[in-house]
Amino acid sequence: MPTADGMATGDLAAAGVTKPATVFLIIRRMEASLYAALAALRQRYRVLDFFASTEPLPAFLAAAAAAVASGAASPPRAAVVGGAGPARVDAAFLDAFPSVRCVISLAAGVDFIDLDECARRGVAVANSGRVYSADVADHAVGLLLQVLRRVSAADRFVRRGLWPASVQGGGEYPLGSKLGGKRVGVVGLGNIGSLIARRLQALGCVVSYNSRRARGDAVPYKYFPSVRDLAADSDVLVLACALTKDTRRCVNREVLDALGEGGVVVNISRGGNVDQAELVGALRDGRIAGAGLDVFESEPNVPPELCDMDNVVMTTHAGAFTKESMVDLGDLTIANLEAFFAGKPVLTPVQLPTQVKKVVVLP
Amino acid sequence: MPTADGMATGDLAAAGVTKPATVFLIIRRMEASLYAALAALRQRYRVLDFFASTEPLPAFLAAAAAAVASGAASPPRAAVVGGAGPARVDAAFLDAFPSVRCVISLAAGVDFIDLDECARRGVAVANSGRVYSADVADHAVGLLLQVLRRVSAADRFVRRGLWPASVQGGGEYPLGSKLGGKRVGVVGLGNIGSLIARRLQALGCVVSYNSRRARGDAVPYKYFPSVRDLAADSDVLVLACALTKDTRRCVNREVLDALGEGGVVVNISRGGNVDQAELVGALRDGRIAGAGLDVFESEPNVPPELCDMDNVVMTTHAGAFTKESMVDLGDLTIANLEAFFAGKPVLTPVQLPTQVKKVVVLP
Repeated sequence: MPTADGMATGDLAAAGVTKPATVFLIIRRMEASLYAALAALRQRYRVLDFFASTEPLPAFLAAAAAAVASGAASPPRAAVVGGAGPARVDAAFLDAFPSVRCVISLAAGVDFIDLDECARRGVAVANSGRVYSADVADHAVGLLLQVLRRVSAADRFVRRGLWPASVQGGGEYPLGSKLGGKRVGVVGLGNIGSLIARRLQALGCVVSYNSRRARGDAVPYKYFPSVRDLAADSDVLVLACALTKDTRRCVNREVLDALGEGGVVVNISRGGNVDQAELVGALRDGRIAGAGLDVFESEPNVPPELCDMDNVVMTTHAGAFTKESMVDLGDLTIANLEAFFAGKPVLTPVQLPTQVKKVVVLP
Repeated sequence: MPTADGMATGDLAAAGVTKPATVFLIIRRMEASLYAALAALRQRYRVLDFFASTEPLPAFLAAAAAAVASGAASPPRAAVVGGAGPARVDAAFLDAFPSVRCVISLAAGVDFIDLDECARRGVAVANSGRVYSADVADHAVGLLLQVLRRVSAADRFVRRGLWPASVQGGGEYPLGSKLGGKRVGVVGLGNIGSLIARRLQALGCVVSYNSRRARGDAVPYKYFPSVRDLAADSDVLVLACALTKDTRRCVNREVLDALGEGGVVVNISRGGNVDQAELVGALRDGRIAGAGLDVFESEPNVPPELCDMDNVVMTTHAGAFTKESMVDLGDLTIANLEAFFAGKPVLTPVQLPTQVKKVVVLP
């Protein structure tokens, strides 16, 4: 059972310094790398720490609520939440912990946070800002190069010892495809999408995009109002959009068919943006040429069929994770909490649908 | 046994057009991809075709010499030679076929052509010019991203079905390292090295270089006169130099130790530029952090120890090979042959050590 005392470890506590506030830390246990970057948070605040708990999340939250009700833990004022865990910051969570007035996502995406509910209750929401943007953009470029140039497949080929036999047998290793000149359609031109576009343009690609709104002359890329039309005019589709009700499965069968048999899909956003069964079918039937996937519909599970395909490269939702970005994330999270506890705006706020909801909830 | 008649197939022959000249085509048999791009060459010229022969190269050359001597084949005037095969255009070859007055390398490198001998005899030499440069540069960037971001290792991890167990077990997948900000030392600032430097600078790296001569203000990169000093000031060493007696094993133990335990080696040039045993030892002992290798000392053999390392990515000397580059290569080779047979300079000449040798051979 989490208690404030039980969590009051660390240098400040050892020095007799009173920790100023209690913070939820809800990260799934696998993300030890992420967590290590947040050691400073544990030193600075009382932490209701799901990561350190051995209970399932519902039991952990129930125990935390009981501890707060009994006075064993002080009410948590903020919640720091991992982006790929079981946690959902929704009405039920906010009802259970009305003392939480600030939610900080450790991810760029906030699809696990009910922004309408946060807006209605005046709860501030922050995300990871641009901490990950360059790393995710690099990962997208890396996945695309991998798929086009068949690097992972070649690496497996060499490791299996097939290269010498191939030479002796007069065999032929399939040719890759050139990056330069490829027409790349970027879906979502936010922080990450913009960096992907800039990188691929520097590498000789012709970039177009789809986004909620056209940027006009602010960007040198052609705008397509629909993902389907973007796909029809592209050799490569790179998904860099948030997962919302508007983008869910925005890459469906029609879009894949528009992309066509020479087409490549790269997804570093959220698995839910793609109709995964349709993607697997298109790859299996050769209706598209390949895919580089960092995200999946039901992580950590991937469609078994993909594991036998040489034109697919898969990674473990790792686009954001480098040693360097973890340090930056720790610094930003502390800075956001400090701003919030000082009564100032968070540094990397997520835009909330405040206006509409305020009208709705007025008596 | 190769004969001119036996090779006189193709559209032109079918149309009764007399082929103007005989050309050697010496490509090892595995390179079917390369060969397919040269179909036009077979149609246009009589071809003494090692690729189509089932004999070992020495037997093939002996039979070709006999065929020429007997008049069964007309003397070959040019030789088109693959860069990764058994062929060496040296004094013995040129003695056996003195009618060859032009040697065209299908590779950027010409380490299998004795340039001194060609210069002495007035034989023109051409290489593949810039046909491959962008693809090789892209491949270098891709290998670096792969090693830094652990993409191939992650792909294997996912394919082996280890991701779900890792999540359940609270396991931790090792973090990658950020590309941006890395100090990259490029060895060899020719066509390919320059494109690598430009790409990596656009991706946020700090580029320095070593080359036969400093470029001064012509390039925005810091020059190091020695590979060792370049390595000492770099996080990543990218080899993009030709293989010459000066560069052979230029990455030795001292250079690897100067690069240090956080360092990464990327080699898309020639395996001989690296002391491979020292590289394997440095990787094994953790004295450097990783390597991306498209080339090896004794291709197609790779050191078995590398096949168990997750911080190594290997490809099959494939940096140059894309569908697009093969088309460009076919076009360039025909254009070089047409220029030579028209008595004009080849389009992509290799600079020969003419001045020195002319002095030496003067009577």
